[in-house]
Amino acid sequence: MPRLIVHSFTISLDGYGAGPDQSLQAPLGVGAENLHTWMLRTRYFQQTHFNKGEGDLGTDNDMAAQGMEGIGAWIMGRNMFGPVRGPWPDESWKGWWGPNPVYHVPVFVLTHHPRPSLVMEGGTVFHFVTEGIEAALERAREAAGDKDIRVGGGASTVRQYLQAKLIDEMHLAVSPVLLGQGEPLLAGLDLTQLGYRCEQFTPGERAGFYRIRRD
Amino acid sequence: MPRLIVHSFTISLDGYGAGPDQSLQAPLGVGAENLHTWMLRTRYFQQTHFNKGEGDLGTDNDMAAQGMEGIGAWIMGRNMFGPVRGPWPDESWKGWWGPNPVYHVPVFVLTHHPRPSLVMEGGTVFHFVTEGIEAALERAREAAGDKDIRVGGGASTVRQYLQAKLIDEMHLAVSPVLLGQGEPLLAGLDLTQLGYRCEQFTPGERAGFYRIRRD
Repeated sequence: MPRLIVHSFTISLDGYGAGPDQSLQAPLGVGAENLHTWMLRTRYFQQTHFNKGEGDLGTDNDMAAQGMEGIGAWIMGRNMFGPVRGPWPDESWKGWWGPNPVYHVPVFVLTHHPRPSLVMEGGTVFHFVTEGIEAALERAREAAGDKDIRVGGGASTVRQYLQAKLIDEMHLAVSPVLLGQGEPLLAGLDLTQLGYRCEQFTPGERAGFYRIRRD
Repeated sequence: MPRLIVHSFTISLDGYGAGPDQSLQAPLGVGAENLHTWMLRTRYFQQTHFNKGEGDLGTDNDMAAQGMEGIGAWIMGRNMFGPVRGPWPDESWKGWWGPNPVYHVPVFVLTHHPRPSLVMEGGTVFHFVTEGIEAALERAREAAGDKDIRVGGGASTVRQYLQAKLIDEMHLAVSPVLLGQGEPLLAGLDLTQLGYRCEQFTPGERAGFYRIRRD
């Protein structure tokens, strides 16, 4: 059965998935520039995001690539889609990723504010779901067929799916960064109680990778 | 100048330094048996704690050994010294480590309940300090001379020294374990605000190692 997974989700050593005060200038919040360095430096990221053959091979690269394999649909929170808050003033914001986003499959964006679906180049279609996380998952399952569905983020979206015990598998990267404040991923969530256990550690070059599963 | 350091302090992926309900049977709290696996499996630990030549070499082993180099005194919380809570009923509890503890230098135990110093084999002397963390540090500095002082734990003791900005350097190990509940090490502490930054990641075999410094 297709799984709902989180992959390559990066937290700081103090447990934050993003810093405080996210904005157009600081999409990951203040002080979080280095949170994703492990991924930015990989050949996979350089190729898929910048069409460049630079970047490092190794475990970090393998992890980044692995997270994109076999994914038939994505789910993300509205803050991961963009910096706009409240009702959409117009339809000009089309995500952070340019005309041909890296997803190449349907992406379901959780929001309280309806908006027509947005067809991008390369197979990515953003659908805006106002009926909550379970409705988004249902639509994503239909779209994904026999492939997995990946929850991209942010922290609050992942937390909601964890709390509902809907995530089957989660791969976290712990970066050598302190944020001090921001959006905690796991604080106050009793993952053991929710049926999760950590079953693997993989040492990367610039981050530690941890795999969590719910049986 | 001699530094106050934390080394090889291990937290779970969800940020706990110990599980809930610590006791004589579960010194690290319930569910925390695997928290220190990375250390227990090293040759250094097997040699120093069990006088056995078994155990693995590698980065984990190097880390465990490094944390014991150049240490002239230790500071620990009372719960790290033992499971006894409240006033000492007698002087029979002499720590978890047998007649010849691994420290071989003076160890200052923070407690609200006075007790005479306890001389063990091999150079370890447990001193019980009732005047708080700064008094313990002062006494440890005198004892350590030009060597470093290591805060052993537990989480609450480390937090107090961090909050007072007294820790110079801290090496954390993040283990592939979820505890769900217990004693958080960093939750609610704004380490950035306190002047700390994470400056190094070292991939181990069974845990990720992160070095934090205050300049």
